Parts: sequence; C-alpha cells; structure tokens
Amino acid sequence: MTKQFLQSPPSNTHKLGEFELIRDIFKTRAEQMMKAKPQHAPLLGIGDDGAVIASRPNEELVITTDMLVADRHFFADADPYLVGKKSLAVNLSDLAAMGAKPTGFTLALALPKQRQAWLHGFANGLFDLAELFDCHLIGGDTCQGPLTISITAFGVIPSGQAIKRSGAQVGDSIWVSGELGDARLALAHHRNEWSLNLESKDLDQVNQRLHSPVPRVALGIALREIATSALDISDGLLGDLRHILEASHVGAQINIDALPRSQVLRRQAQAIQYQCAASGGDDYELCFTTNSNQHDKITKLSAELGLPLTCIGQIIKSQDENSLILENSDGVPLSPKQTKELQRSFDHFRD
Amino acid sequence: MTKQFLQSPPSNTHKLGEFELIRDIFKTRAEQMMKAKPQHAPLLGIGDDGAVIASRPNEELVITTDMLVADRHFFADADPYLVGKKSLAVNLSDLAAMGAKPTGFTLALALPKQRQAWLHGFANGLFDLAELFDCHLIGGDTCQGPLTISITAFGVIPSGQAIKRSGAQVGDSIWVSGELGDARLALAHHRNEWSLNLESKDLDQVNQRLHSPVPRVALGIALREIATSALDISDGLLGDLRHILEASHVGAQINIDALPRSQVLRRQAQAIQYQCAASGGDDYELCFTTNSNQHDKITKLSAELGLPLTCIGQIIKSQDENSLILENSDGVPLSPKQTKELQRSFDHFRD
Repeated sequence: MTKQFLQSPPSNTHKLGEFELIRDIFKTRAEQMMKAKPQHAPLLGIGDDGAVIASRPNEELVITTDMLVADRHFFADADPYLVGKKSLAVNLSDLAAMGAKPTGFTLALALPKQRQAWLHGFANGLFDLAELFDCHLIGGDTCQGPLTISITAFGVIPSGQAIKRSGAQVGDSIWVSGELGDARLALAHHRNEWSLNLESKDLDQVNQRLHSPVPRVALGIALREIATSALDISDGLLGDLRHILEASHVGAQINIDALPRSQVLRRQAQAIQYQCAASGGDDYELCFTTNSNQHDKITKLSAELGLPLTCIGQIIKSQDENSLILENSDGVPLSPKQTKELQRSFDHFRD
Repeated sequence: MTKQFLQSPPSNTHKLGEFELIRDIFKTRAEQMMKAKPQHAPLLGIGDDGAVIASRPNEELVITTDMLVADRHFFADADPYLVGKKSLAVNLSDLAAMGAKPTGFTLALALPKQRQAWLHGFANGLFDLAELFDCHLIGGDTCQGPLTISITAFGVIPSGQAIKRSGAQVGDSIWVSGELGDARLALAHHRNEWSLNLESKDLDQVNQRLHSPVPRVALGIALREIATSALDISDGLLGDLRHILEASHVGAQINIDALPRSQVLRRQAQAIQYQCAASGGDDYELCFTTNSNQHDKITKLSAELGLPLTCIGQIIKSQDENSLILENSDGVPLSPKQTKELQRSFDHFRD
C-alpha cells in the first residue's frame, strides 16, 4: 500500500471509503469467480498485502501492485531519483509484509511529456534499489499522460509460508519495526501544519524517512517462521492494524506510549507524537504478531538486523470484530473519541 | 501494447521515440542487472509482448503490463463497461501473442473522485471479460488521481513454448488474424478526419471494433506449435512488424493489397484503406510467421476458429536489419516515401 501524503487530512464525514469500495465491488466479484471457476485461482487473492499463486516446486509467487500519482503520493517536482527509489520500495514493503523475497517487477509509467533527464534520474533510483534487493525489471509500458507510476512486484516464498493478515491469535504480542511517525512529521513541516520544534538536521532526518523509505525485506523473511500475521503499515499503524483485526476476527490492546518514536518526534508536543506515530502513515515499517513466548527470539532478531522491534500491545478477544483499546503507559484508556480519531486510517476516497 | 488513439497523428519530426527511450534507459539497465545478478532473472525479459518466468513443473508464467490513460487511450466519458472490458482485453491480447493461456491479473486504478456508478460499470465490463477467459483478479490498488488504469496480466504456457518475436526465419510466411483498420476508421469518424463513406450500421460495426476488441487467445494457444514468431499489432501492423524484423534480424516483403479489410473499409478511398489497415492500430489482432509449408494447417485452423487468417507476405533476408518492402497486388513496389509513411508505428512520445 502507498499513502497519498499530499492531500488534505480526511474529514469526519462518512462516505464509502476505499477499503469498503474495493471490497464491495471488486473483492465480491473476484471471490464469486474463484468459486465458480477454481482453475488457476490464486492461493490467496484480494485482501492482503499481496496475492499468492503456485510457482515452482515447493515455492509460491507473491504478487503486489501499487500506483503512485504525482502531487498525491509524491511532489511532481521531487527529485526523480528518490521518486524512482520510493516507487519500488513501497512495493517491496508489501512483499516484505508477506515474508517474500523480491525477484522481479513490471513498470507502467505515464509521463506528461518527453522528459529524458527526469527518466534518467528516475531509472537510476529505481535500479539502485532493484539491485540492492536483486529484483529484476521484467517488463513495462510507457505512455504519455499525467505523471503516474504503477509497479507490480513479484517475490518468492517457500510453499505455505506466506504471512497473512488472518493468523493473529488471542494472547499474541503485537510488534512494530523501526520508529514511527517521522515521515508524517516531515509532511507536517512541508504543509506548515502544526507548531513544530525542528532544527535543520532534524529536518534532514525526517525528510529522509519520507522520501527514502527502506523496505523491511530481511525482517519479513525472518518473520516467516515466527509471525502469526503481518502487514505493511504505510497507511498508518492503527488504521492498518484494523485489517489484521478484521481478517483474524480479534481485537487489540495497544499501549500508545510504547510506540517507537525518534528523538526528533519525541521533542514535539504529545498530541503531535500520538498523531504521527499512531496514524501518520508513509512509514513502510511492518506490524506483526507473534505468540507471546517469542520475545527472546524477537530481541535476538532485532540485534541481528540492527532494527528496533518493539512490543506495543497484545491481541485480545474481539467484542465486535474491530475492537481496539488504546491505553497510555499508566494503563489509562484513551477516550473513545480520541481512539477513533487516531485509529482512522488514511482513506484515498474520503476528502 | 495499447494504442493511445486519441492523440493527434504523429508528425514527421524526429524525436527520440518511446521504443528507443525504453530501450536506452530501462532495457539497458535491466540487461546489465540480469548479467550481474542472474538469480531469479526472468527467462525472457523486456522487449517482447510479455516476460516469461519459471513457474510450476513444465510450465512457465507469462507476464504483461499495460497502462490506459483517460482521453489518450479511451474517452473519459466512454461507457465504463466498455472501458473495463477493453482494459483487460488489451492485456490478454499481449498474452495471446505469446501463446499463453490467461490465468490472473492485478488492477491499479486512479480515479478523479469517488464515482460509484462508474466503478460498477467498469467492474462489470472487466469481470465479464475475465470470466469469459477464466482470468482471476488477484490483487489491486485504488487511489485518487487522473483516471488511469494499469493492469498486469498473467498467463501460463508449457515450458519453452512461448512464442517470441525473435524466431522469424527467411522464407517464412507472414500472417495476420481478422480484419485490419476498422478501429482506425471509427476513430477517423470521431475526429472528423477524412471524407468517409459510412452508413449508420457501418458505424456500429467499426465502433464495435474500436471499443470491444476481442483478444485472440484461442489463436495464440493454437499457434504455440506452428508459429515461429508472433506479436500483437495494437500499434499498427507495419510499425509492430518492425519489432519482429529487428528481433529476428530479417526483412519482410508485404503485399499491401492482401491486408484483410472489412467490406466497410473497402468502401473507402484506397489511401484510407492503406492507412487504416497498414498502420491504423488498435486492432488487437495477431501478426505471426510460420514455415512456408504450413499453409494447409493455417487454413484448417482458420476454419476451426471461425477467424480469417491471411497470408500477407514473406520474410526475406534483411539488407539493414529493418528492411520492409511494400508492394501492391501487381508486384509494383510502393515509393520509399509512401512505405516510410505507412510503416511508422504509433509513438507515444512523438507529438
């Protein structure tokens, strides 16, 4: 998933959102067809970070697709090198969430006009990331149109090992990788949104997080045998976590003060910290669940990867298929209004 | 490939075109990487109608991607049902050109705003075609932006049987399926371009060809064991044929009067007939080559499929890797200027 970070924050007006829209229209039809015509149906279809289809012996192919639109997902005048890198990174982040090792991708690109310098920069960023992860460009389509980048990425995984959203169990621990909220802080600065306490070097750090996300591929691969569920939290932690809760029919209790934040974010007002870390989005970290006896293993994995892995709560029995309890570090629950506000994921069709 | 049929005809000014652009920037980098990091490299990469990767035992996966932009590839106010159908059809046409049987696709969709009625119509068209060809929607991404549709489609083929552009041999016969040029005629009518002789029922026929192309899937599958090369001629016969000639290092001799045309097109001026059939594009027919002793087999196949298959010329030795000789039915060669004009494929970056 990618976050459209450039549009205004969503209003409270309830309209049919992206997720409901896709489910209602496309998912229903796709599932009907899978029942009626099971031949070549995917092993896992719409509704996770990637689809899974049978591949070579003992191996499955994980497939994910993401579209990035200029001035919605990135500034049209942004450094094309960084746009190229990020275009692929957001797809590899989805593969990482499934535990897959990236192998290849296709690229469809609409460009407003012939822009060779832009294309060279874009291709350099794209291939620098592709080479880092041994992920081959295998096909593409280029046309004239409003600057839009659509990548479909492929990864492999041993049969049956894809990490789904549906595996979380009551009692599981909930984890997130890295630090959350810096990308949202960078965006707030670009938007002049809040009163921020940012020095020049702070800005470099948060801009880096916004423009150069690193997909957590090694983590995803390591989690195949440990995690009961996982997803990529590019749309904001709490909104994305909702997908695990819905798919697994469970609830969650989250310690909002446990959310891992950078020193830069910790210097901001508490409300900004909460907002950025809990529902800021564009972080491209993984949220995953494990059996509660896996803490030592995760601590060791964190040290091996040099990547913070933080326990932020636990899976509880669901009251209504979507129950989320937010508490502060003193165990005091946040108000329902505050919880709802923080929980709301970014929605591409709510303006 | 898809043709952006709504933009002005290309001028003669030479600029770096789409094909050269992609080759220079993306293909070069992709090939360098395949050499340096052969692990998981595709069996066939950029430069054909689809890529080929290893799949289940004795089977390969063919992958193709196409992007359609509103008011370039289709009218923004066109019937969403037809847009949905055509979006998938153009991708299945690429799979057909490789000889693959469609199995699944992903959809990335940018929509200007929430448009439920449009989405329902689009989904209906998309799934009606998907069900016709047992091709499952396996994943997707939806976001807000200028109306853009990007589909990546998957098909399967027995190992080693993918029909490539590079297999044409000197002496081979050159064939096309169906009738060429009706889609271009429909576009000319919409554009008020030429003086046309079209009755109302003629218009229905050519509009049908423009808006509801039928991918030649059964033909593609049948050609696996007969064709030495094949491609989808959505960008216009002669321009697309150039890709076979380049990939196979051969030339071609084409009888321009042999190009199969509908009765409607045959009622137009000869120059219009040539223009539409030879380089009109948006036809989604297949052009393929076979050993010259396969004529009986092709005649039988044509009858079985209920689809005209017409021999339009033969593969000859190339003088300069791209030699194309156009003759009329009396064996008189067209002038170099006329040949060049008709041969020019649609190019997305030449305005």
